[in-house]
Amino acid sequence: MGESGREEYKIQSFDAETQQLLKTALKDPGAVDLEKVANVIVDHSLQDRVFSKEAGRMCYAIIQAESKQAGQSVFRRGLLNRLQQEYQAREQLRARSLRGWVCYVTFICNIFDYLRVNNMPMMALVNPVYDCLFRLAQPDSLSKEEEVGDPGLDGPGGESRCLLSMEVDCLVLQLHRVGEQLEKMNQQRMDELFVLIRDGFLLPSGLSSLAQLLLLEIIEFRAAGWKTTPAAHKYYYSEVPD
Amino acid sequence: MGESGREEYKIQSFDAETQQLLKTALKDPGAVDLEKVANVIVDHSLQDRVFSKEAGRMCYAIIQAESKQAGQSVFRRGLLNRLQQEYQAREQLRARSLRGWVCYVTFICNIFDYLRVNNMPMMALVNPVYDCLFRLAQPDSLSKEEEVGDPGLDGPGGESRCLLSMEVDCLVLQLHRVGEQLEKMNQQRMDELFVLIRDGFLLPSGLSSLAQLLLLEIIEFRAAGWKTTPAAHKYYYSEVPD
Repeated sequence: MGESGREEYKIQSFDAETQQLLKTALKDPGAVDLEKVANVIVDHSLQDRVFSKEAGRMCYAIIQAESKQAGQSVFRRGLLNRLQQEYQAREQLRARSLRGWVCYVTFICNIFDYLRVNNMPMMALVNPVYDCLFRLAQPDSLSKEEEVGDPGLDGPGGESRCLLSMEVDCLVLQLHRVGEQLEKMNQQRMDELFVLIRDGFLLPSGLSSLAQLLLLEIIEFRAAGWKTTPAAHKYYYSEVPD
Repeated sequence: MGESGREEYKIQSFDAETQQLLKTALKDPGAVDLEKVANVIVDHSLQDRVFSKEAGRMCYAIIQAESKQAGQSVFRRGLLNRLQQEYQAREQLRARSLRGWVCYVTFICNIFDYLRVNNMPMMALVNPVYDCLFRLAQPDSLSKEEEVGDPGLDGPGGESRCLLSMEVDCLVLQLHRVGEQLEKMNQQRMDELFVLIRDGFLLPSGLSSLAQLLLLEIIEFRAAGWKTTPAAHKYYYSEVPD
């Protein structure tokens, strides 16, 4: 059951024309402008949290297809160039749109997770990914509370909006996903990142209870060798009565 | 270099007569009232934090000496009876003297650590020791701050007195010492104890920064398999400039 046999990539959130562009890029990459495809994917990732979590797999498939068909890497170069541009402007992005910034970090981590060179993660992405995670672990990110909600569910004034530390949430999700690989590539930076995370508990501004739990869990997770112990799983992931 | 060849037990804090009693108990246990010796040791442990940390080794030596000389266990029975009495009255002890209570927990953990039956910890002590540690992990203990200081160093009004969460301090010291053994004897209770410890971070009354660090460290320590990783060691135990 090869990947080309069924549509595995969630591209429903693109308009019809772009969906067609992406499908062609996967099947016959030489027939489309691959630099444009790279830009379309990055643009969409910065706006769509769900897509940003899984774009890496599709990007990897396009890279493979292009390499097989033409022995070239136009798409990969275009993708990495855009990632680099956004990386350099990341503080502006963060100031403009916290949601866009979180999407960007999710996306670059996902790309780091999927793109392989000789079955190894790309060295060129290690430090940019670390830099993003370090940014998420700064005091202002750890203690920031954003009001988020889904107006479609609760209406704009819905009472069940919850306070959520978006950046903390993103930080721990990415560490769950790529922490172990990142540590293998550069252990010292992971040590430094966890210094920031532990320091978070001592912030004068304080952390929300949710942020404390998220950080506590990732600290245990790493200490246990990037694994969740059964007791930790029960504590952090079980429904609690009342 | 046998133990009897040199004075290994720190009994200088006893008066001369009692020092003689203890020395005799170690060399010729049949010549003294071993029940009295047990009471003397427990009484002293409840008042002397340093002694309470190392009394177990001497108790074990007296038990061995009595067993070898007379095949009896008068001392051990006396010791365990007294521990049991103090255990039953532990809430009163705690209310009367926090320092005495912390000495008691230190002592019973030390006894648990040293007393062996067929090279195994004593089953009879597992639940009492857990109960004491659970008491130390209750919200009122975790968030309690006691002013302590050494008047001999700073004078009664010395400015360098520090706020220290005595019970948290005791909790993590004991877990460092006997946590791994305790978990082997009863993992479920250790899981429950760590639920209380994690919950500590969510207390409305808040924890002191020191208490947070101590608890964070023990959480990492257990998650890493009752070991301190090099990065954790650097974070928690290194001198910080400034």
